[in-house]
Amino acid sequence: MNSNRSTGVAILGLGTIGSAVARLINQRGASIGELYGLDLKVTRILERGPERAARADLPRDLVTTSLDEILSDDGVSVVVETLGGESPAADWIEASLKAGKHVVTANKEALSKNFDRLQRAAHQSGSALLFEASVGGGIPLLVSYRQILAANQITSLRGIVNGTTNYILSQMTTAGATFDDALAQAQELGYAEPDPTADVEGFDAVYKLSILASIMAGTHIHPDSIERTGITGVTPDDIASASAGGEVIKLLGQATLIGGAVKASVGPERVSADNLLAHVRDNYNAVELVGDSVGPVVLSGQGAGPDPTASAILSDIVEALTSGASSNVPWKV
Amino acid sequence: MNSNRSTGVAILGLGTIGSAVARLINQRGASIGELYGLDLKVTRILERGPERAARADLPRDLVTTSLDEILSDDGVSVVVETLGGESPAADWIEASLKAGKHVVTANKEALSKNFDRLQRAAHQSGSALLFEASVGGGIPLLVSYRQILAANQITSLRGIVNGTTNYILSQMTTAGATFDDALAQAQELGYAEPDPTADVEGFDAVYKLSILASIMAGTHIHPDSIERTGITGVTPDDIASASAGGEVIKLLGQATLIGGAVKASVGPERVSADNLLAHVRDNYNAVELVGDSVGPVVLSGQGAGPDPTASAILSDIVEALTSGASSNVPWKV
Repeated sequence: MNSNRSTGVAILGLGTIGSAVARLINQRGASIGELYGLDLKVTRILERGPERAARADLPRDLVTTSLDEILSDDGVSVVVETLGGESPAADWIEASLKAGKHVVTANKEALSKNFDRLQRAAHQSGSALLFEASVGGGIPLLVSYRQILAANQITSLRGIVNGTTNYILSQMTTAGATFDDALAQAQELGYAEPDPTADVEGFDAVYKLSILASIMAGTHIHPDSIERTGITGVTPDDIASASAGGEVIKLLGQATLIGGAVKASVGPERVSADNLLAHVRDNYNAVELVGDSVGPVVLSGQGAGPDPTASAILSDIVEALTSGASSNVPWKV
Repeated sequence: MNSNRSTGVAILGLGTIGSAVARLINQRGASIGELYGLDLKVTRILERGPERAARADLPRDLVTTSLDEILSDDGVSVVVETLGGESPAADWIEASLKAGKHVVTANKEALSKNFDRLQRAAHQSGSALLFEASVGGGIPLLVSYRQILAANQITSLRGIVNGTTNYILSQMTTAGATFDDALAQAQELGYAEPDPTADVEGFDAVYKLSILASIMAGTHIHPDSIERTGITGVTPDDIASASAGGEVIKLLGQATLIGGAVKASVGPERVSADNLLAHVRDNYNAVELVGDSVGPVVLSGQGAGPDPTASAILSDIVEALTSGASSNVPWKV
């Protein structure tokens, strides 16, 4: 006898992240039933064909090429968007919300470029739009932000939100590698894409910082409005000079509340060895939040990868179905 | 026009923590009204006399010496227990829960020695027993634990949960101080008590680890059952020898899930400089949680002090009034 509430999850895009989510839902099913009284099941997959479902050991008949079919399926409560990229993801997130589905996404680009519109769609439909996985991967960052926010004005934040560049800078620091050698190594290990532009030029970090800065400001801070410098110009000499001063170079996203407005930027910065951020190695991420009562709080963990990302997505699925909150952090439309 | 829900908070014990809570409720009142629709007010204070209320700029007529008066006051929704110590705090927490009040506490000793009994009282009354402030002060630790737990088996945790001993060991490491000199300095700065036993012998850390280990085990792990070694025996030679191996000595609380049971201990340990915990300085705290999907997640911040503790307490007050959860993490009675 299973008296748990049966809940269908649809996954849009069964790439490495989507497949990891399906696997994790299966693996954690019994525990989630016990802890939350939910009987979670992947009941729909949006893909071009059934091959990926078969490869992920999922029934081929879950696959559809029609978003409408998913949106009109009353058995689907939560849509997990793991397509990536702005288009068509942002429109599909909006359509899902308007159809009364909760949406969980890791898509920093779609969100950061459409934050206001998507939050409004969630608010109007009464559905949840949850995106813990979009910034800092598996790190419980937004849930911590929300908890701190209840008791603090959060006056600034800064962090390492791109694992690829942190790996490259770590290699340059500890092994004395040049940027080109460290990049080649990151590409070999799968930490960097064949075209590394989005990472090394800071675009990925800007998307993530845009989401954090928007939350902080209470208004949409578009990625285009964020000052951006990549790490392609960082030289071994820069690293050595920082090191001589007891500092290391990190690609930091920073947002500060000044006179009611938020100033945000992404770029390589010297970080004192006294600060935990200086010791965040390899492809790990970390964010420091500063609250006026609590002081600085640092959260660190794996910022990318299928399993850590799926972990944050599954937490958000449970959150959507148990909390009634329409966003990871309070948001006024 | 204020359409917010009016909510009375009673504070048991107006020492430095209790006063900081009252101050923070006042300071954050408008924001909490806006974010959560709550009109929070301190309406009762349990104290021997009105002097402390007057010193904290609170009306003298809020003070009562009668717990019963508070428990029979329908205007009080949340009882904040900031007395410290096991007795009478544990009984008063239980009585408050049985009277249908939510309870928020920072009291690691009362909780760790009575975890099962107090959780049961909360469960039976349908009230919340929240204790984020009892471990790691202002660090959003339990909220992060809960979020990770939804998607992971948490297989181990370890951390620096006592700021006094971390300050002493940091001084011994960076300044080459002896234990006695570092302790004297900690006492001068107010980081250590005149009688430092509870900190330096590891009792305080054991209380906190007991709470974390109980959550992990899903059953009460009494502090007396936790292996405990203090730091009074740590010598400059130990520190130097660790340092030569690229390690530092930290007082760690550790809990590991082995074969369905939790093994817990507190004692000085060598930590590799590769790990963030090695770089947690002065009186800061940090805890590393390891989930089977997310991997290691480290959370760091101020583990004690009136403002960080009040921050966690106020977050829990809001949580009690908005979430309906009976504990910070799911707990089966």
